Amino acid sequence: MEQIESARNPKIKLLEELQQKSSERRRRGLFVVEGRRELEHCIAAGYEIDTIFQCPELSGDISLPPGCRVFYVSLEVYGRVAYRGTTEGVIAEVRIKSHSFDTLPKCNNPLYVILESVEKPGNLGAVLRSADAAGVTAVIVCDPLTDLYNPNLIRSSIGAIFTVPTITCSSEECISYMKSHGVSILTAQLQDSLPYYDTDMKQATAIVMGTESTGLTDQWRKAADAHIRIPMLGHLDSLNVSVSAAILMFEAVRQRQ
Amino acid sequence: MEQIESARNPKIKLLEELQQKSSERRRRGLFVVEGRRELEHCIAAGYEIDTIFQCPELSGDISLPPGCRVFYVSLEVYGRVAYRGTTEGVIAEVRIKSHSFDTLPKCNNPLYVILESVEKPGNLGAVLRSADAAGVTAVIVCDPLTDLYNPNLIRSSIGAIFTVPTITCSSEECISYMKSHGVSILTAQLQDSLPYYDTDMKQATAIVMGTESTGLTDQWRKAADAHIRIPMLGHLDSLNVSVSAAILMFEAVRQRQ
Repeated sequence: MEQIESARNPKIKLLEELQQKSSERRRRGLFVVEGRRELEHCIAAGYEIDTIFQCPELSGDISLPPGCRVFYVSLEVYGRVAYRGTTEGVIAEVRIKSHSFDTLPKCNNPLYVILESVEKPGNLGAVLRSADAAGVTAVIVCDPLTDLYNPNLIRSSIGAIFTVPTITCSSEECISYMKSHGVSILTAQLQDSLPYYDTDMKQATAIVMGTESTGLTDQWRKAADAHIRIPMLGHLDSLNVSVSAAILMFEAVRQRQ
Repeated sequence: MEQIESARNPKIKLLEELQQKSSERRRRGLFVVEGRRELEHCIAAGYEIDTIFQCPELSGDISLPPGCRVFYVSLEVYGRVAYRGTTEGVIAEVRIKSHSFDTLPKCNNPLYVILESVEKPGNLGAVLRSADAAGVTAVIVCDPLTDLYNPNLIRSSIGAIFTVPTITCSSEECISYMKSHGVSILTAQLQDSLPYYDTDMKQATAIVMGTESTGLTDQWRKAADAHIRIPMLGHLDSLNVSVSAAILMFEAVRQRQ
């Protein structure tokens, strides 16, 4: 087994490029997963592990998936490439899977969360974490400004990027899918809207949210079956997008129980 | 007006100590507020501004509260002490106010959010932001592991630390207050609990949450009028504490409309 003792090793350079550049992730078709629990969720979701960098002093004995390349790295090298420094001792390069409406699980009464042009990978990860808890059918990211395999996204999702079906597409394609499948489109917006809890979410429902800065585009507002808002009872008129998403998803959970 | 051109100026050193050390904040009775909007909320909430460091190239002309010391700082000095680098151009040293149950606003049908031993200032700030939106009567931090004037807390609250009455006390004192004021205590816990939406939050209510790692202590579980949980329908069994708090607060909002 090859031992890597230097952060200047070309394999470590390639790993760092995958962490830092979405263009490299696209070019090589790989992304990076750090941590034992995240990797377990990733494997359980059917992702193919290409390469594992293991620091035995930190990881101890672990069972690794068959068929992947394994390199031992020193504590110093691991500390340099790992975001969480000295924990867990496992970083993997994983093959990107493409997800589309065709691969979505069938569901009688789906609940979708749709995010248009979400800006911050950390926010998207936080939405995915809540979507896992709420048992959401899928999260759909329309016209994304970040790729799904950004390390901040994976980290803040604590693995939900693997447990929640997540697809990216254009807003046009998404609207067309929802309309043709009889899914009620509820857009979160302040103007011309009802309090979210006065809206029926028991049937097939898509909750659609825009960016914190500019909100939803007109095409979504026009496509909506209802406009919903979270009442703002304070002084600041502002909720974090992942908090808003969680409040709306769990209202659907409540209505469906 | 004194101009500060060097980050080695003693006044800048003192400012940095207030940013970094809770012991210095306690000793001098001051904390640090950055940003124009945050400072406006702070002044509106009746805090006394001690000192303002203003970078005129960034702030432009602004009206400053009377009676405080003002120093102009260079772009370079501002960039060094400001968390957000080059935005807004105003950082202030503000006098700490103490809050207690005696200073709480009177309210017929209060909704309290109680956090026991919350660990991360950023999480507490995020809870305060949602508490503002939900019109919560007060947030109470019991046996805190962070002070209320940590810069991460102020930043993630986007000013809600000033708009939402927030007090710290012991769990014992808090339980005694809630019991003697007829407030129903709902503790968030997984064991022996009802789904939160099956619990009445229309009367005077306190929602109590523990840390993400260890949950609530026994004294709170025993003091509870009901134990509530957010159903976990996914694979990860985990919600961020600020997301959980927001879901519970807005259920109270829904029931009270």
